[in-house]
Amino acid sequence: MTRRIGLAACQMGPVQSGTSRAEVVGRLIAMLERAAAGGAALAVFPELAFSTFFPRSEIADETLLDSFYEDGFPNVETAPLLYAARRLNIGFAIGFAELIRDGGEARRFNSMALVDRSGTLRGLYRKIHVPGSEAPEPGVTVHLERRYFAPGDLGFPVFDLDGVRVGLALCNDRRWPETYRMLCLNGAEVVLIGYNTPLYLDEAPALAHLRMFHNHLPMQAGAYQNTLWVAAAAKAGLEDGQALIGGSCIIAPSGEMAALAISLQDEVIVHCADLDLIAACRRVNFDFARYRRPDQYRRIAEA
Amino acid sequence: MTRRIGLAACQMGPVQSGTSRAEVVGRLIAMLERAAAGGAALAVFPELAFSTFFPRSEIADETLLDSFYEDGFPNVETAPLLYAARRLNIGFAIGFAELIRDGGEARRFNSMALVDRSGTLRGLYRKIHVPGSEAPEPGVTVHLERRYFAPGDLGFPVFDLDGVRVGLALCNDRRWPETYRMLCLNGAEVVLIGYNTPLYLDEAPALAHLRMFHNHLPMQAGAYQNTLWVAAAAKAGLEDGQALIGGSCIIAPSGEMAALAISLQDEVIVHCADLDLIAACRRVNFDFARYRRPDQYRRIAEA
Repeated sequence: MTRRIGLAACQMGPVQSGTSRAEVVGRLIAMLERAAAGGAALAVFPELAFSTFFPRSEIADETLLDSFYEDGFPNVETAPLLYAARRLNIGFAIGFAELIRDGGEARRFNSMALVDRSGTLRGLYRKIHVPGSEAPEPGVTVHLERRYFAPGDLGFPVFDLDGVRVGLALCNDRRWPETYRMLCLNGAEVVLIGYNTPLYLDEAPALAHLRMFHNHLPMQAGAYQNTLWVAAAAKAGLEDGQALIGGSCIIAPSGEMAALAISLQDEVIVHCADLDLIAACRRVNFDFARYRRPDQYRRIAEA
Repeated sequence: MTRRIGLAACQMGPVQSGTSRAEVVGRLIAMLERAAAGGAALAVFPELAFSTFFPRSEIADETLLDSFYEDGFPNVETAPLLYAARRLNIGFAIGFAELIRDGGEARRFNSMALVDRSGTLRGLYRKIHVPGSEAPEPGVTVHLERRYFAPGDLGFPVFDLDGVRVGLALCNDRRWPETYRMLCLNGAEVVLIGYNTPLYLDEAPALAHLRMFHNHLPMQAGAYQNTLWVAAAAKAGLEDGQALIGGSCIIAPSGEMAALAISLQDEVIVHCADLDLIAACRRVNFDFARYRRPDQYRRIAEA
């Protein structure tokens, strides 16, 4: 019997500063309902889904900064999303700003939570490839992820969800071939990605027309080169004055685009993913046990 | 001043069994002349350019098998190509079957030679990712590279040609992200690739319409993710009854297709490559020293 799983990518329109968690969570639940109605068993939401993409701003006020983070996940404001998952019998992954208070020390990560169909938190991923800078740089669009987030320290975990092996990645991670390869070697069959990608960068005005190409190219290559399903959800549209690209998509292990968002708003795309395609595609060029040459790749893992 | 180099990809139509080296070398020299006339300083020819793609056949006769290999490179039959390079002031890379006789022991590699503008052999690459099998397998198109060639043992070398750092790769290597990453970390600015790719595979009839997509996707991703120039040359057309795809191309560090062959015959495409684009593209997402996480990639280099 063919193994299948319904995948949904839940693209979000912008979340302007000051929008309440309750309003955002309401939008997310509405999308989860559409995903479940469309036959999805697993949905992905964007990176930093509960708020505006705040690393585009220099935020001096600690209380304001903290307001963008989840102090514990789930918490009282985000728990309704997990109850909805249980009610709808659908799992999901969602990006959020993670704040941990270890005694007096605050630790902050750009994280993604994976919740199963029973509404249970199954695990976390913390973004490995944190882009941007710690302080604004001349001529470069402000992007302070490296001030607001520590580098991920959980590796590239893969979770078993009802027999389907699921890996997670966030935004800039999707540009790096190592992300897909590590997830593949760790056993992933499906990779869920959330992202926020500005259309314009001051440091690369001549590349603006290529932003969507540079969004899809590494994800399609990652799917093909590792024979994985990829589902990726963007936050899109004009958010606090910054244009974010959409292009949320579901990509087959052949690298083919199986579903693609066509708006810059809240939009749910669903594809019933044939997991047997993974083995079929792997047989052609990517029998890893037979053909990989790890002894030749040492420099990739050397500092 | 902008650093530029004229790159040429010299696609070859088929080389049927029994074609003499003299005839093939004549075709290659004619293409080298067109490349030089078009402003190229560096050209790439296909994998196993001097003969038919013989791994598609089971060859029991040792003398016949040996006839496909170069016993030393350059040799009396291939040297005219190096003289032409010197005369035309153009360097080139070319794929060939390499036979080494160490005492009584024969060693065989699927290799690529790099020759500079003075017609001097500068170095060799030996294919790292050798595909296919050692014996025919049921239901699978015969592809005996693993019988006829040992796995490459020279790593991913990068050569300095008049101040431009050049890496080499062959056919199946181009599907593996590790190839580009290793060459990038070894300092390559330009990657020259030769390939022979059948359109139909018995083991994957449903993927035939994707063969060109699967040709370009990993090369464009490899160029983008490592901000390299890629020039790739196919052997194309109906060769000894097997249809080979063309699609020879020159790809910018942005992943954009800068030039693309439009035939299945001998065809030369040229692009004057701006090497400063490498730094411009790297600045956006791929400041490797700042953003790579090699400590997180260990499994990639572990057997």
